[in-house]
Amino acid sequence: MQDRERIYSESVALHEAHRGKLAVRSKIPVHNRHDLSLCYTPGVAEVSRRVAADPALAYAYTLKRNTIAVISDGSAVLGLGDIGGYGAIPVMEGKAVLFKEFADIDAFPICFASKEGDLVEQIKNIAPVFGGINLEDIAAPRCFAIEEALQDIGIPVMHDDQHGTAVVVLAALINACRVTGKAFEELSIVISGAGAAGNAIARILKCLGIHGTTCTTVRDIRICDRKGILFRGRDDLLAHPHKYILAHETNAQNRQGTIADALVDADVFIGVSAPGLVTAGMVRTMAPDPVVLALANPVPEIMPEEAHAGGAAVVCTGRSDYPNQVNNVLGFPGIFRGALDAGAQRITESMKLAAAHALAGYVKKPTRTHILPNVLDKDVTRTVAEAVRREAVACGCARFGG
Amino acid sequence: MQDRERIYSESVALHEAHRGKLAVRSKIPVHNRHDLSLCYTPGVAEVSRRVAADPALAYAYTLKRNTIAVISDGSAVLGLGDIGGYGAIPVMEGKAVLFKEFADIDAFPICFASKEGDLVEQIKNIAPVFGGINLEDIAAPRCFAIEEALQDIGIPVMHDDQHGTAVVVLAALINACRVTGKAFEELSIVISGAGAAGNAIARILKCLGIHGTTCTTVRDIRICDRKGILFRGRDDLLAHPHKYILAHETNAQNRQGTIADALVDADVFIGVSAPGLVTAGMVRTMAPDPVVLALANPVPEIMPEEAHAGGAAVVCTGRSDYPNQVNNVLGFPGIFRGALDAGAQRITESMKLAAAHALAGYVKKPTRTHILPNVLDKDVTRTVAEAVRREAVACGCARFGG
Repeated sequence: MQDRERIYSESVALHEAHRGKLAVRSKIPVHNRHDLSLCYTPGVAEVSRRVAADPALAYAYTLKRNTIAVISDGSAVLGLGDIGGYGAIPVMEGKAVLFKEFADIDAFPICFASKEGDLVEQIKNIAPVFGGINLEDIAAPRCFAIEEALQDIGIPVMHDDQHGTAVVVLAALINACRVTGKAFEELSIVISGAGAAGNAIARILKCLGIHGTTCTTVRDIRICDRKGILFRGRDDLLAHPHKYILAHETNAQNRQGTIADALVDADVFIGVSAPGLVTAGMVRTMAPDPVVLALANPVPEIMPEEAHAGGAAVVCTGRSDYPNQVNNVLGFPGIFRGALDAGAQRITESMKLAAAHALAGYVKKPTRTHILPNVLDKDVTRTVAEAVRREAVACGCARFGG
Repeated sequence: MQDRERIYSESVALHEAHRGKLAVRSKIPVHNRHDLSLCYTPGVAEVSRRVAADPALAYAYTLKRNTIAVISDGSAVLGLGDIGGYGAIPVMEGKAVLFKEFADIDAFPICFASKEGDLVEQIKNIAPVFGGINLEDIAAPRCFAIEEALQDIGIPVMHDDQHGTAVVVLAALINACRVTGKAFEELSIVISGAGAAGNAIARILKCLGIHGTTCTTVRDIRICDRKGILFRGRDDLLAHPHKYILAHETNAQNRQGTIADALVDADVFIGVSAPGLVTAGMVRTMAPDPVVLALANPVPEIMPEEAHAGGAAVVCTGRSDYPNQVNNVLGFPGIFRGALDAGAQRITESMKLAAAHALAGYVKKPTRTHILPNVLDKDVTRTVAEAVRREAVACGCARFGG
């Protein structure tokens, strides 16, 4: 924890020294009257006239083509909870920096001061300058409704805590299967955490909402929240519609019980929940060569040493100080880069699958300690982006390159 | 007009070549895991925690300190009218470029898709990341209510079409007085145009809303709209509250009539209206050594040659191809630079006056053809900014440097 404290104080110092992390720059010079007349009045009037007549020209003549918003209401910031729009700024600004550094996307943070009011209408209303919207750190279940309501606005809108995570987890699982020899469609999986990430992971693994695309679904999933396994008939689920639906779409045998009960005979554990929920003893009850993705961060559901002691064949965490780091930066930059390059009108389930397969395929020879690419390998973005762009064109939702 | 067409096509080509004008950049490197841990998780968590606990720390740790929004609803874009949020993008992006190039301010365009809904609440809600808001190209009278309602949100909010214009016009008038020997407080002024700009010019010249500051007001103003002089008793004014108020605050003799009637014996004509409304003959009826600011752009209320033929001593236009260009770029970059440097909670009337006097004073020896600084002289911004910053501190609305 001394390390952690040092990182904290270094990070604060860095933020203070630079007064934040993001700046704006002009792509064109303004040195003389002629420059001024092209950049602003009178020349810009003709550009505005054309865009007003055909808003699609915003992609040709304005920042829209390469610009996204990173939007949060501050309701679920990192592990800090509902800290509000101001507390969210450093994280959204950091996310914008990652978009720039990993994908050369011009991302700008928008942090809502209040969660009251109709955020969907407010987001729609500021959409003109943006070619895409990355929703971030919005609490479940409101994140589901907000994202869903924005799917038809004509630009890609993705809640990264859901789908970015799900894409990287799927890629990790694909490669864990290559390493362990397990068949993906035979996997029995336990997910701990039924929030934004858990829901999206379950959906992508069960191919929910994926139509018209070849999609291999796993054999079964059991999802646990704090109260244990989600099962049909559990009293409290109707209060959480997404959990109610998950209970009906997963848990084929309708098992009940604790996370320990869920793990018996499972091939894979995926934790997107809280520290220390899983023990070596529980891992020992899993099927042979179990795969453990313990992604609670910084302290995972089970530490890698302990998971291996329980017999885990492959262990992934969110941490950079162990092998097999599952980090969203392997996903979102390429997903949005590909979507923007295609001028995609949305990010379809098939585009997310394409991203996951490209990410998994990027690792030519996965091993137990090399399941995913290095998070700092910026070529990953290019590979994921190209796969996403192609799929956008193939599935008919691309404006460009069709 | 062939020139104009050439500028238009060059501007379109420039916009297309660069896909817009504005980009984002990261102020910090992300080359290794350590960089990543400071910029984003886990380090950023501590920064977010601190800002959540004390939102004022956003000024120290985030982009807020140097970032403003350039916001429009597209309801009055340049001379193009209500062309909507998409058509507004190139102009707002251009304005952001000018903020960057002239004042090193990180400005980002926000263009509202719809004018429906409560724009004030929507603007308040996206305010956390911004240290200031430049409202732009919003039609009168809605611009008055929107700006007014945003004055107490704790960051400077200024509608540039109103106050940026008024500041530069006031500076021009101060120097026109130095050149012609007229006494500012003896001026009789005719304003053509009772919209956003005309209203703000009248108010700053009459020191309306300016309290606790030494302020010299001109002798009299007569304001004309399309129907002629605003006077007390004119039937239609109650439908336009700001015109009703102006009629009561100006036109001491309650004159009635056309713009030609208004101009008789006036010292100054200020046009922020439409091409060709004024003739040499009308200028001839003005007081000796009349000052003509014909700011309709690109075609002024009267062309300089004609104004001089009518006896004008000083002629200013918005055009770069004649002497004495009145251009907002002489005002807004310095006003916001100074406001941001001070961490001003608002832009007070006294800060606008300070800006105008600094701008006028920047021209050490004004002449009839050198009333204002060159619009490309970026040192102007520094001078105006310092005056605004000092006044913000002096009037007690600065967060920093007090």
